[in-house]
Amino acid sequence: MKLYHTPKAVNPERSYTFLKAKGKLDAVEIEEVSIMKLEHRTDAYKKLSPYSQVPVLVLDDGSTLTESRAICTYFEGRFPEPNLLGRDPKEKAVIEMWDRRIELGFLSNIAVWFRNTSQVMAALENPQLPEAAAKAETQVRKFVATLDEHLAANEWLAADRFTNADITMLLTCGFSSLVGWKPHKEHANIAAWYQRTKAHIDQ
Amino acid sequence: MKLYHTPKAVNPERSYTFLKAKGKLDAVEIEEVSIMKLEHRTDAYKKLSPYSQVPVLVLDDGSTLTESRAICTYFEGRFPEPNLLGRDPKEKAVIEMWDRRIELGFLSNIAVWFRNTSQVMAALENPQLPEAAAKAETQVRKFVATLDEHLAANEWLAADRFTNADITMLLTCGFSSLVGWKPHKEHANIAAWYQRTKAHIDQ
Repeated sequence: MKLYHTPKAVNPERSYTFLKAKGKLDAVEIEEVSIMKLEHRTDAYKKLSPYSQVPVLVLDDGSTLTESRAICTYFEGRFPEPNLLGRDPKEKAVIEMWDRRIELGFLSNIAVWFRNTSQVMAALENPQLPEAAAKAETQVRKFVATLDEHLAANEWLAADRFTNADITMLLTCGFSSLVGWKPHKEHANIAAWYQRTKAHIDQ
Repeated sequence: MKLYHTPKAVNPERSYTFLKAKGKLDAVEIEEVSIMKLEHRTDAYKKLSPYSQVPVLVLDDGSTLTESRAICTYFEGRFPEPNLLGRDPKEKAVIEMWDRRIELGFLSNIAVWFRNTSQVMAALENPQLPEAAAKAETQVRKFVATLDEHLAANEWLAADRFTNADITMLLTCGFSSLVGWKPHKEHANIAAWYQRTKAHIDQ
């Protein structure tokens, strides 16, 4: 298997960190793709990823997968332990619920905020709409405050152990620094959870 | 089990139609929630759904699930046949990939377009940003044209049979009519797939 990966980009990092948390980085060949150099827009790359998305996973049979969360699902099937997506129907659903809450309430709003304000994105995001960024900022600050409340009473986001939902939130906290915001410096429970989660992944 | 459902709202319909395609509507009590009457904003409802989302599934043990796609995952575990989310790691990942492409490239853009232009949404979506709607419209028209190409060569969206990805796209085609657009009237391959999918669900 081969994973086309862009380090530091939030969606590619979701698949990469999932594989790392499985302890299986050495089972997959990694090839870096530079989005800044527009390597994802070449014809050769579009044969692997029709919508120019990173990551792409090329399977042993030569077929390709895109969408970071779908690639995680594949990794979970191939490398079942440690379990990160749930063991039974209820646990699977609860982990997916939290993963989606983070994705839709936190990650997506940071993406709108970033794309519509960052100089780096000016050429790719045309026109940039500062009002859309401001609305996303208001929504995400309110939502993240509810995550801090949740983490006051829960060691991990979705279960009594580290799961994929923690990965998504950890990476989104890092992504937030691109708009000059560090929610894990602002909220005490998120701060403690952030250290716990980072230590778990780096162990 | 009990499902809190808002008919005609696209995300609640995802869980409801999934259950219908399983032939299991009679296994779950359905209670309707009127978003227009703000029934999802009451304190009683927020005890079930902290972010005021519809749908909510109340499990037999009294715990609750939100996020329509997570509720589908739970139904798949409880009612395995007909399979709608994939039988092996690769099929699961491919179906999820297409489901996410529809959700992120089609459904989300229609939602931005709708929320920022509809009179109905003026009170809930403040401020409405016509420029954000215009950008979403441009993106979604381009994306949906690629879906028409895909369906020229494929009977179903994600596999050699009807799956959850078809449900998400069918409902999003219907949702599009809220902004006065009917992609299934505009694109020949989507039109044929739309009739096939609708007939399959209604059978």
